[in-house]
Amino acid sequence: MPTALIVLAAGQGSRMRSDRPKVLHEVAHAPLLVHALRAGAAVAPERVVVVAGHGGDAVEAAAQAHDDAVTVVRQTEQLGTGHAVLQARDALAGFSGDVIVLYGDTPFIRAETLQAMLDTRADGADVVVLGFEAAAPGRYGRLIAQGDRLERIVEAKDATPEELAVTLCNSGVLAADAETLFALLDQVGNDNAAGEYYLTDVPGLARAARMSARVVTCPEAETLGVNTRADLAAAEAAFQARARAEAMEGGVTLVAPETVHLAYDTVLGRDVIVEPNVVFGPGVTVENGATIRAFTHLEGCHISEACVVGPYARLRPGAELDRAAKVGNFVEVKAAQVHEGAKINHLSYVGDAEVGARANIGAGTITCNYDGVFKHRTEIGADAFIGSNTALVAPVRVGAGAMTASGSVITQDVPDGDLALGRAKQVNKDGLAARLMAKLKAAKARGRN
Amino acid sequence: MPTALIVLAAGQGSRMRSDRPKVLHEVAHAPLLVHALRAGAAVAPERVVVVAGHGGDAVEAAAQAHDDAVTVVRQTEQLGTGHAVLQARDALAGFSGDVIVLYGDTPFIRAETLQAMLDTRADGADVVVLGFEAAAPGRYGRLIAQGDRLERIVEAKDATPEELAVTLCNSGVLAADAETLFALLDQVGNDNAAGEYYLTDVPGLARAARMSARVVTCPEAETLGVNTRADLAAAEAAFQARARAEAMEGGVTLVAPETVHLAYDTVLGRDVIVEPNVVFGPGVTVENGATIRAFTHLEGCHISEACVVGPYARLRPGAELDRAAKVGNFVEVKAAQVHEGAKINHLSYVGDAEVGARANIGAGTITCNYDGVFKHRTEIGADAFIGSNTALVAPVRVGAGAMTASGSVITQDVPDGDLALGRAKQVNKDGLAARLMAKLKAAKARGRN
Amino acid sequence: MPTALIVLAAGQGSRMRSDRPKVLHEVAHAPLLVHALRAGAAVAPERVVVVAGHGGDAVEAAAQAHDDAVTVVRQTEQLGTGHAVLQARDALAGFSGDVIVLYGDTPFIRAETLQAMLDTRADGADVVVLGFEAAAPGRYGRLIAQGDRLERIVEAKDATPEELAVTLCNSGVLAADAETLFALLDQVGNDNAAGEYYLTDVPGLARAARMSARVVTCPEAETLGVNTRADLAAAEAAFQARARAEAMEGGVTLVAPETVHLAYDTVLGRDVIVEPNVVFGPGVTVENGATIRAFTHLEGCHISEACVVGPYARLRPGAELDRAAKVGNFVEVKAAQVHEGAKINHLSYVGDAEVGARANIGAGTITCNYDGVFKHRTEIGADAFIGSNTALVAPVRVGAGAMTASGSVITQDVPDGDLALGRAKQVNKDGLAARLMAKLKAAKARGRN
Repeated sequence: MPTALIVLAAGQGSRMRSDRPKVLHEVAHAPLLVHALRAGAAVAPERVVVVAGHGGDAVEAAAQAHDDAVTVVRQTEQLGTGHAVLQARDALAGFSGDVIVLYGDTPFIRAETLQAMLDTRADGADVVVLGFEAAAPGRYGRLIAQGDRLERIVEAKDATPEELAVTLCNSGVLAADAETLFALLDQVGNDNAAGEYYLTDVPGLARAARMSARVVTCPEAETLGVNTRADLAAAEAAFQARARAEAMEGGVTLVAPETVHLAYDTVLGRDVIVEPNVVFGPGVTVENGATIRAFTHLEGCHISEACVVGPYARLRPGAELDRAAKVGNFVEVKAAQVHEGAKINHLSYVGDAEVGARANIGAGTITCNYDGVFKHRTEIGADAFIGSNTALVAPVRVGAGAMTASGSVITQDVPDGDLALGRAKQVNKDGLAARLMAKLKAAKARGRN
Repeated sequence: MPTALIVLAAGQGSRMRSDRPKVLHEVAHAPLLVHALRAGAAVAPERVVVVAGHGGDAVEAAAQAHDDAVTVVRQTEQLGTGHAVLQARDALAGFSGDVIVLYGDTPFIRAETLQAMLDTRADGADVVVLGFEAAAPGRYGRLIAQGDRLERIVEAKDATPEELAVTLCNSGVLAADAETLFALLDQVGNDNAAGEYYLTDVPGLARAARMSARVVTCPEAETLGVNTRADLAAAEAAFQARARAEAMEGGVTLVAPETVHLAYDTVLGRDVIVEPNVVFGPGVTVENGATIRAFTHLEGCHISEACVVGPYARLRPGAELDRAAKVGNFVEVKAAQVHEGAKINHLSYVGDAEVGARANIGAGTITCNYDGVFKHRTEIGADAFIGSNTALVAPVRVGAGAMTASGSVITQDVPDGDLALGRAKQVNKDGLAARLMAKLKAAKARGRN
Repeated sequence: MPTALIVLAAGQGSRMRSDRPKVLHEVAHAPLLVHALRAGAAVAPERVVVVAGHGGDAVEAAAQAHDDAVTVVRQTEQLGTGHAVLQARDALAGFSGDVIVLYGDTPFIRAETLQAMLDTRADGADVVVLGFEAAAPGRYGRLIAQGDRLERIVEAKDATPEELAVTLCNSGVLAADAETLFALLDQVGNDNAAGEYYLTDVPGLARAARMSARVVTCPEAETLGVNTRADLAAAEAAFQARARAEAMEGGVTLVAPETVHLAYDTVLGRDVIVEPNVVFGPGVTVENGATIRAFTHLEGCHISEACVVGPYARLRPGAELDRAAKVGNFVEVKAAQVHEGAKINHLSYVGDAEVGARANIGAGTITCNYDGVFKHRTEIGADAFIGSNTALVAPVRVGAGAMTASGSVITQDVPDGDLALGRAKQVNKDGLAARLMAKLKAAKARGRN
């Protein structure tokens, strides 16, 4: 049976106290909406419709940046979840099959859970609702059910004391045949205090129409929604805890897991060692046996086996480290291929560059890649030796086995095997330091500056 | 009714195992004493008296650095809390009104709590004692009371089994009319094992004199005192947890709240994003919508909206970033105004400087601001372009739209629109690198160095 | 009575998912095996035998790097713990006394516990087994005992329901007279599902031979073994919690203890302040009253009193800071003596060097200590002033009270009191920056690069 997703992402999220639409706040470097879309992708939907509202342009851009096959529709008035789902009707014209309604602020639904909902549909349930046993049911809607047969959903504020005692709560996630869903939504009214159309009325209407409604349950943690910054931090913590545990199960040593921050797409090989206080931004792959030392910050980079990175290394997008390369402290590497066994150990900026195998980049080396308008490339050959405090003014090439003298400014290519010097000759001024210092101290004593 | 504070700050704190007076140990970058003074300031006291003893000079200096209207008196002998309070009598000569006795090692009493004590005084209680329900009463003094009517305070070691079962404990904080307080203290004796005069005898003496004593209660967390380094760490953790929660409620994203360290006076605007592992020292203000990236260290600085700071940025006192300025990795900025849209992206030291709007400061730029005795200023004009690895020898001015060539040492002013060069010409020595390396390797093979 | 240790370290640890032998995974910068050896060293053993198997060469190297008096024997087939202990028989030829069997993956047994086992031996017990009350006994072997009289050890899978209800479990640690131990092991059979010889059969065989077997107990935390990366992280966390608490008890302020990572041999004096996010590698000693600021990384270094190190300072092995020296942000120091009151405040690399008392090292200073093959030394005299962005090309000496001009490359010695310059003269090209920028922008507008 073909499946479609409707992801509700129109809410303002006023409790976030933010100018940013709620679903674009991020967990593990991906927007909540993207987490929801990734969760939904597990059931291989034929169509995906995101219902945007507040900050709709930004939401649309984020959804399509993630997957340009997503259709984004707009809910221009916020008239309730039922109304929101109806906005997807046109986008699903011609679609025949099951629809799952997800939420852009609920990032952690698992594939198994969605599959269980579809299986229950396939088993003959007309409407399937995802419930959870709530530790503190509070204001959640209650699922009034006999076994997994759902009678109706009761909002907490409308519930009898007996109903309030029910701990099986509504996640909001719902699956139904598309035609059935929209037909039932047409019957939903707005005769309530808020004047809104609620998706939660659908199961009761289904039952009234002698259709079947069933409940699938999942752990409460999967239904965690984000309404405040504290919720966002809690979602981040939940993500991190799971991602750290998975990394360790896969054979990664996290010396102090609670200090390592992973991204949604971090890939870490076996016997990778990650020291304390390491931040992984998006797009990082680390191969087996590499060591990531403390205080390292990685984004959009590839680290091969036997590499040692850090402490205090920053690899930015496009940094590619071949086997056994080393990047050390206070070093920034960007858009650079660092070949096997090359070393950039201290206090350097290497950007828009290629560093040859076994090359040694001295402390304080800077690739001067920007002229104020354009970026230019630096090429350093295999076995080259870049002396400390060298400025490499790109575009420039230092040949294989070539050297630059410490403190040089290199503005022209250096042929293979040559030594390039670009520095002034030293002169010692006899006793001048002593005289200068005496003068300065005298000035200070006179209160001058 | 006018109010005065007496803050007891004479103790040595031997369990701290420190040469520093206990009340000068810090939480969130402020001494415990300052936290106590800030808490007390909430009731707008007319006079504040700090009773110092151990390390009195340092305590006096810290108290007056915080607020020079504070009077510091000395308790030269440590004869108990009652004796300590009496040392404040002369400093309160001529004062008529309520006195609250606070403790310099108890940083978390809330304004509402002190106000409740004053309200209870205003309601006719002669003596008001602050109590708390202790989770583990242990060695705390017990408040023997009927409702909020206090009979007396019993030390745990003198308590009957029935009294020990009482969980309402004494925080030590007390309020009374000044005249009453000192009159009762005159009656306190030292007929006890330690030979000390205890403030805790005051309520009992009040009752014996047919005066009324009442209890005001607060959560135990407010009465947290610091006696060991572990207590200090716990107080820090409590402060941080509260400050982080407040920041998030105000619309700040803390990606990993447990890794962000705030100061007592940190101000963070709405939609500020703080990545993991950021340390805020004192005196930091961040405006709406700025991003503070990982591993950033901030002290005494101002960050305007749309700025991006870090990762690995260090802003020191006097760093002022205007709108949309950027400070990147391994960059230190001190006493410098960085104007709108200026960028200092990598490996630079900018101190005692002004950086013009939209100026771009290349990697490895150093303002050479210190001559060994004096500090000098660097001025960089709007739209200037400072080439990588430039040394700016202050005092010096680079004009608007001017450039410096990479690797230059700039010792003279650069007029607007000029390009300054201060670097040697490059020479390539044919094959010299190859010969040098061969020689070195041969030397190594012979075992020389 | 002489004592010998047998440390079992042959296991592969397949659940670690690692190419590294399990006992070589590290906690607090020391392999698990070293923790076990250090624990055992508390009873001053006359001989220590490590039984290696998987990764035996690496295990042998690590054991002997820690203590070259250790004998390493090999268990070439993995035929059970009893078989493993028997591999130590030859290495203990001629030894007469007590043997304790420890485990290379169980790092936290305390000295007091081992001593209690030996005392119980001295008290007449033929075999002594270390047990613990398990919170979740699960698959642990159960100790079937009357008081401290041990009957036998029952594996969980062989236990009756009554035996499974026993919560006193087997740690595996065992003590016996050497001759007795080996004699009993000769009787152990391998008539079990795995076909292995189990050390756990020894107590039952002892009882069958009318010898006495007794149980000594310890807290479960001491018996924590490491089988997975998650266990390893838990062991690290347990170590850190204890080490942090001990530091605080000794008078160290850890502002945020959970963010400070200590090594197994870190020594911190009284009134040392450690700010958040500090990593201690092995071999660090910090004297009383020093301050370690945030984001600092220390290995193999000595920090004297009144020093201030960090933020973002990296001290590598051989960094020795005398009294009141300062090392600031983005500074790396390696194999260097930094004398009293010297300052290296910003963005510098100082390696293979001596820095004289009160010398000031300007921002961006680099000791160019490596020529591609050899390392060379830099000597900086007392009161010297190294201008910013100076490259010191070693071997080189800057004399006492000498100065280098900012941006200089120093290739020759600078006599005491002299000022050395090695930089090009500045030239300003009239209006060239404006013309260049106009040209670049025009090129960009034409879409060229």
